[in-house]
Amino acid sequence: MTVSEKTLANAIRALSMDAVQAANSGHPGMPMGMADVATVLFSDYLKFDPGQPKWADRDRFVLSAGHGSMLIYSLLHLTGYARPTIEDIRNFRQLNSPCAGHPENFELAGVEATTGPLGSGLATAVGMAIAERHLNAQFGDDLVDHRTWVIAGDGCLMEGINHEAIGLAGHLNLGRLIVLWDDNKITIDGAVDLSSNEDVRARYAATGWHVVSCDGHDTADVRRAIDEALADPRPSLIACSTKIGYGAPNKAGTSGVHGSALGEAEVAAAREFLGWAAEPFVIPEDVAAGWREIGARGAPVRAEWEGRLASNGQKAEFERRMAGELPAGFSLDAYIDSLIAAPQKVATRKASELALGAINDLLPETVGGSADLTGSNNTKTKSTGPLTRDDYAGRYIYYGIREFGMACAMNGMALHGGVIPYGGTFLVFSDYMRGGIRLAALQQQRVIHVLTHDSIGLGEDGPTHQPIEHVMSLRMIPNLDVYRPADVVETAECWELALKDATGPSVLALTRQNLPQLRTEKAGENLSAKGAYRLRAAKADRKVVLIATGSEVEIAAATADALEAQGIGADVVSMPSWAHFEAQTQSYKDDILPQGVLHASIEAGTTFGWERYASLRFGIDSFGASAPAEVLYDHFGLTAAKIAPQIAAALA
Amino acid sequence: MTVSEKTLANAIRALSMDAVQAANSGHPGMPMGMADVATVLFSDYLKFDPGQPKWADRDRFVLSAGHGSMLIYSLLHLTGYARPTIEDIRNFRQLNSPCAGHPENFELAGVEATTGPLGSGLATAVGMAIAERHLNAQFGDDLVDHRTWVIAGDGCLMEGINHEAIGLAGHLNLGRLIVLWDDNKITIDGAVDLSSNEDVRARYAATGWHVVSCDGHDTADVRRAIDEALADPRPSLIACSTKIGYGAPNKAGTSGVHGSALGEAEVAAAREFLGWAAEPFVIPEDVAAGWREIGARGAPVRAEWEGRLASNGQKAEFERRMAGELPAGFSLDAYIDSLIAAPQKVATRKASELALGAINDLLPETVGGSADLTGSNNTKTKSTGPLTRDDYAGRYIYYGIREFGMACAMNGMALHGGVIPYGGTFLVFSDYMRGGIRLAALQQQRVIHVLTHDSIGLGEDGPTHQPIEHVMSLRMIPNLDVYRPADVVETAECWELALKDATGPSVLALTRQNLPQLRTEKAGENLSAKGAYRLRAAKADRKVVLIATGSEVEIAAATADALEAQGIGADVVSMPSWAHFEAQTQSYKDDILPQGVLHASIEAGTTFGWERYASLRFGIDSFGASAPAEVLYDHFGLTAAKIAPQIAAALA
Repeated sequence: MTVSEKTLANAIRALSMDAVQAANSGHPGMPMGMADVATVLFSDYLKFDPGQPKWADRDRFVLSAGHGSMLIYSLLHLTGYARPTIEDIRNFRQLNSPCAGHPENFELAGVEATTGPLGSGLATAVGMAIAERHLNAQFGDDLVDHRTWVIAGDGCLMEGINHEAIGLAGHLNLGRLIVLWDDNKITIDGAVDLSSNEDVRARYAATGWHVVSCDGHDTADVRRAIDEALADPRPSLIACSTKIGYGAPNKAGTSGVHGSALGEAEVAAAREFLGWAAEPFVIPEDVAAGWREIGARGAPVRAEWEGRLASNGQKAEFERRMAGELPAGFSLDAYIDSLIAAPQKVATRKASELALGAINDLLPETVGGSADLTGSNNTKTKSTGPLTRDDYAGRYIYYGIREFGMACAMNGMALHGGVIPYGGTFLVFSDYMRGGIRLAALQQQRVIHVLTHDSIGLGEDGPTHQPIEHVMSLRMIPNLDVYRPADVVETAECWELALKDATGPSVLALTRQNLPQLRTEKAGENLSAKGAYRLRAAKADRKVVLIATGSEVEIAAATADALEAQGIGADVVSMPSWAHFEAQTQSYKDDILPQGVLHASIEAGTTFGWERYASLRFGIDSFGASAPAEVLYDHFGLTAAKIAPQIAAALA
Repeated sequence: MTVSEKTLANAIRALSMDAVQAANSGHPGMPMGMADVATVLFSDYLKFDPGQPKWADRDRFVLSAGHGSMLIYSLLHLTGYARPTIEDIRNFRQLNSPCAGHPENFELAGVEATTGPLGSGLATAVGMAIAERHLNAQFGDDLVDHRTWVIAGDGCLMEGINHEAIGLAGHLNLGRLIVLWDDNKITIDGAVDLSSNEDVRARYAATGWHVVSCDGHDTADVRRAIDEALADPRPSLIACSTKIGYGAPNKAGTSGVHGSALGEAEVAAAREFLGWAAEPFVIPEDVAAGWREIGARGAPVRAEWEGRLASNGQKAEFERRMAGELPAGFSLDAYIDSLIAAPQKVATRKASELALGAINDLLPETVGGSADLTGSNNTKTKSTGPLTRDDYAGRYIYYGIREFGMACAMNGMALHGGVIPYGGTFLVFSDYMRGGIRLAALQQQRVIHVLTHDSIGLGEDGPTHQPIEHVMSLRMIPNLDVYRPADVVETAECWELALKDATGPSVLALTRQNLPQLRTEKAGENLSAKGAYRLRAAKADRKVVLIATGSEVEIAAATADALEAQGIGADVVSMPSWAHFEAQTQSYKDDILPQGVLHASIEAGTTFGWERYASLRFGIDSFGASAPAEVLYDHFGLTAAKIAPQIAAALA
């Protein structure tokens, strides 16, 4: 190579400052500061092939400090990925450019994870590293043998999620995870010591990590540090001492260069300082050739790997798993038939465990877990032994008391591919990991959240533990499927739907308390797939449609009984999924929720939002209380004895 | 005292195991394990007076491991608080007992914070410790000189929030904060080492904490450790090595004793083991007398303090501040008049800064801050200098990249009293601290969240940073006031409302982009207090009411112009607060949203929920995108040019 490493790195700096300048929006400081480190990583260490961005055994690279998106856009372009083109980069942050403000996995094949919300990228990378070791244990070194690399900033390290993520990584001893920390001592508000006096290195060491430091502008020193990290069996933190905005002679090293364009004058001064004479968005041919050479490193390695794959007995299964396809003919029909044959009264959390028993036997790709509520979430089944630092082949993760860490790790496993992650906690603690759930939805990843104790039905633990607004507030996250099944059969149906949707996450909201089996006849189809369906038709002349979800469908049925006894015809509609119902034809919707009769909703949560379907709404618009479940249902008026008279009165 | 410390501690154990057994629900393990430590704390260290639970200079005690609620109920009862009575304890976890499943500040005067969601109690205590030092700096040692004590479990330490909380405490060197860690090596799923191999002590030390260990069942050793903590200027972690469920001979030391009643047989065995002969809920008179003696320690100390207060020149101001009352005659009227006099086009985040300029001059009790977005949230004003480890009198906290930690710290400041906290981040990151916002609402605390960049109007940062469902999902949290003001005047009105509501938290959702001043005439009242009001009445015959919030009120006005030009009369209703509007009379609501005309909503977020007010809904039901704001508004169809024709068509 005829071009110096400094010059290669300056290509990143030039593209970054020019793109931000053109958009007059963005974050030049990080890409300019970390350009040298990134150049070393891509030159000598990262295993990748721009021609095959989805090569299964590539290293994963996650830019956790996602605001520095021009770093990865520059690298992908320079090393020869089909996208982004230079035109894409010219249109940085403009509508329809894949070079969005923050890197998005659904825009560019070379972007492994959507980042920006600080800390979540690193936590996602932990999941990728788990998936890698897990698949390695299942498929062997020939097929799965790669690393996960992260570039993170001070923000990623200060966020609470960092503690959960590195705790999990340290516990599982994920030695193939290497975090390059952009230790520039600057945050948006100013110097890091304005808000932190933490010894980051000591904290990582306390959590089971290997820690090494280097001068982030001395490429030999960066290599030394990376080599040391590679040699250590623990996950590694490499503290790269850098100057934010390196190359901008007047602004580097200050928070002023973090999140704003440099300005024309400073861009010109940086060109001078860096000795970069090319026009904006022009890469001199020798520099471009140098980068293309780096990008070409991986193709022969991939070809070798393809050869190994071709002769591997597990080829078909490996490819199926990595493609995210369920085994041909996967179905829970037989299991559901067995439920119909022998009705039972169980909590839907228990119903979920039963379904998982069938699922985990059928699908070797599931990896379950819980944030320290295994016995309450009922997430562990016989076929899923623990995944530990000594046995990565296990299929159950004791995530510890780390809800957000769990959510992000699951996102990373799904993004890695080859694994379908599910994990449990109490529904109320979805608040702790809401940012992670949202990122699964945005990234279009199949991650399944098993959220139990889904209402006041959990009883005595009281308002801190009782979801009120949670189910409804999750329903409004785009691309998230929220299911609230009413019995053991619906629970199985909803699990099936969650598994079959490879394009987004699902939440299963499940009860602590037992529920009778309402579905006792063969349906011949997955009724929950309709989102809502008529569980019972009115016997008398229909005057009201009772719409309920989950544990309240039983109450709706009892209410219907009470009304029918008075000659008031009442349909009972079970609505396990709003999103699926919205996707039905208008005629189906009109059939289920016919005009001209009263619509009443019953759900043990906020009535906020039920205006969509019901003019009379039974629910809870305050916080809960501490008492046995049946006492609370009565206290909050959610019994047939209290609801039926109000409906009768409304019809009178 | 004639009773041994062991016997005093056994009174806690007996009440705890008996109450859990009677309820057949609850967590006996923690109270039994930490009974000895708690006995030492309350006997010799904690400054409290059961006769005056709200004595301003009392120590604060926070049971962060809130599931062990019987520990604090036992202590409050035994030391002589009016509540809980023994009858209250007999009714542990039953409806209307103040002894709820988890401790609740609104149920018992002796409970300083509502805990249960793990980690949040400790993080709340950090805020209390900040408030103490701040008020000490303002009012002096004579009036404010107390400590904050926490009992926390492994869950509290493993949660991400712990990292944020202790980072903040270490940075601010809150030496009067002492955390007693119940180091029992057990979590719900089993041994701690099932999910963590962290060196907790080293992690705390890395974050600026003093760390000391002791045998939690050796009261002399506990005293030694506490004394060491008191002597150290840093915040202290005391690792108390304990056996969970100590006293239950067959179950102690296992996760089986964590969250279930011991069972009659084991309760009997524990009585035997502990030498506790009394019947359930009976405290032998000598033991009761011993505890009452402990409870009586504080009264003379309080009396002395009362004497100092009586002669203190700042008495009235101190009492006002601690009562949470605003200064007599506090009003923003003059400031709002000045706005009317000179209309301006500013972002509502800037409008908030302007309002804060007036507020912070009028209210010495405000303490502001931001999670590393000071310049973006516009939360700092001239009168609020930094609150630092060297100057606790400051009124601005650089919280660092710690949203959840900020939210909980603010809760703690509000619970402590004497301070009105406000803090900023981007609205989208409300997801990171949703658990903290909910706890402010549940605890009925005046905490004000300044959440800027409240829609796609933030532009290029793209979907990771653009709130879609956030405003709506916050509206459904009980007792949380969500405000989305439309201009500089409404922003001031909403600030005034947030400050005047001492019984709950508020969210101000504010724009990044500039908005014209729509309110240019004196109203003579706070129009935002109505929640919604008619900003403009239709000129032509009224056919439609356009309901909008925040930045979309401008668009509604332009839409009305376009419709009026076609002879279609259109009211424009600005609705800064759903909750306030719901609280109005039906006649007011009918006047603002009259029947018989079309209601159309415009809000740059999810349309989910707008069914309540509007049959035609303009909004965004997908994730956002990365582009300049005005491009995005057009892309998502939120312009008068795109909306007006649809309304005209709907009316045709």
